Amino acid sequence: MGNPVIDQLMNRRSVRAFSGETVSDDDLATILRAAQQAPTSVNGQQVSLIVTRDKSTIRRIADIAGGQVQVATADVFVTIVVDFNRTAHACQAAGVTQQIADSAEGLMVGAVDAGIMLMALQVAAESLGYGTTAIGGIRRAPQALVELLGLPAGTFPLVGTTIGVPDKTRLPRVKPRVPLSSFAMHERYDDAAVAAGVTEYDRTLAAWWQEQGITDMPSYCRATAGYYQSDYFPTVGDVLARQGFSLADK
Amino acid sequence: MGNPVIDQLMNRRSVRAFSGETVSDDDLATILRAAQQAPTSVNGQQVSLIVTRDKSTIRRIADIAGGQVQVATADVFVTIVVDFNRTAHACQAAGVTQQIADSAEGLMVGAVDAGIMLMALQVAAESLGYGTTAIGGIRRAPQALVELLGLPAGTFPLVGTTIGVPDKTRLPRVKPRVPLSSFAMHERYDDAAVAAGVTEYDRTLAAWWQEQGITDMPSYCRATAGYYQSDYFPTVGDVLARQGFSLADK
Repeated sequence: MGNPVIDQLMNRRSVRAFSGETVSDDDLATILRAAQQAPTSVNGQQVSLIVTRDKSTIRRIADIAGGQVQVATADVFVTIVVDFNRTAHACQAAGVTQQIADSAEGLMVGAVDAGIMLMALQVAAESLGYGTTAIGGIRRAPQALVELLGLPAGTFPLVGTTIGVPDKTRLPRVKPRVPLSSFAMHERYDDAAVAAGVTEYDRTLAAWWQEQGITDMPSYCRATAGYYQSDYFPTVGDVLARQGFSLADK
Repeated sequence: MGNPVIDQLMNRRSVRAFSGETVSDDDLATILRAAQQAPTSVNGQQVSLIVTRDKSTIRRIADIAGGQVQVATADVFVTIVVDFNRTAHACQAAGVTQQIADSAEGLMVGAVDAGIMLMALQVAAESLGYGTTAIGGIRRAPQALVELLGLPAGTFPLVGTTIGVPDKTRLPRVKPRVPLSSFAMHERYDDAAVAAGVTEYDRTLAAWWQEQGITDMPSYCRATAGYYQSDYFPTVGDVLARQGFSLADK
């Protein structure tokens, strides 16, 4: 390719094993500042970050996420917070009452912007040689994280990312994806292509595990079914409601 | 910096004026393939893209988004679709019934992954010299987009992005952000820092507009209040429900 950005994206993988070395303060500041330039809906900047470097707090977050070693051993954990508290301050300064936070549109704005910010953080961190994994596991017990991080009404800790120096002896291979034609469809959704893509990818992923001599990992269909046959984080709706969010139209 | 990825992120801006030149098929394929390597929760790949190149369809999407010239004049529009139809096929193949789509956790997974994919697409496109703007405006009339793109149950068109060749005579300046210390907080949320950041940024943004001789743009507080004093896209919850989503815990 010769394009370092495309090369980095094409070779992206989730890094779950760290060397134990430190993320430098300068690099961390660069990562945060670069990610901050990501777009936000209507420039509302309804996303904030809580940066955790305290090792006992990182271990606590690892516990909240279900005892994840990849979190406990990361040098930095960044929680991405949907933040309609910031915009409530802005509305108050303008003399109006904010209405958006507890609407479907507001929740979707915040969640999309949190995802955007997650990718921006990871792209920035990886360009400096760090490894990352997105951690949705913080939604296993979101109320505990609200308390740990002191999150006010109008905010929600939606997703996080680890940042650390990769253990180069345990770098994972780049994981394949569903066929491009079943992911990026032209002009209209093609259900037959999606279904065929699932069948093909089930074999692709199984072969990918086998190539590495790993025989105990489920294929795509079994892995996905294992997660999605239940609501595995069943307090997300409750804590969203407590923090002031809803899926209502107003 | 000397780091092309960081440089690109730091200089990111939303490009809304295009030259009218074409995005090459090869570049578009590279953008889509690079973005596809972005992470998805539990490798579920519950995001799909609908790539629109047909100019009459792009103009229809521009209408749906409220008559946005920046959409109508883009060479490519990519709709990012939360896709639990794909994972439903996977669950079916594994002999189980998918439960996740109509839960709060499922909706949050899908929305975050859609945001991740948006940023991945934009980072890839910008690295090849193209300009982009995230278009949340498709949620102005999501049912119309569901019909236009033929989106089945379990899917929702959450956000989109334009891709085009920038009109270099009308490149916007990089827009400032709230103070870094009020965005990336250390260890715990700091409401006083967030409030002070809003006050400071209100002045920063007003000065930034003034420097460019633009005097009719509202400051941060007035702009944000203008949007967020109402639920400006009031059918998002209804269409999410029709497509099978909810904010319930199960």
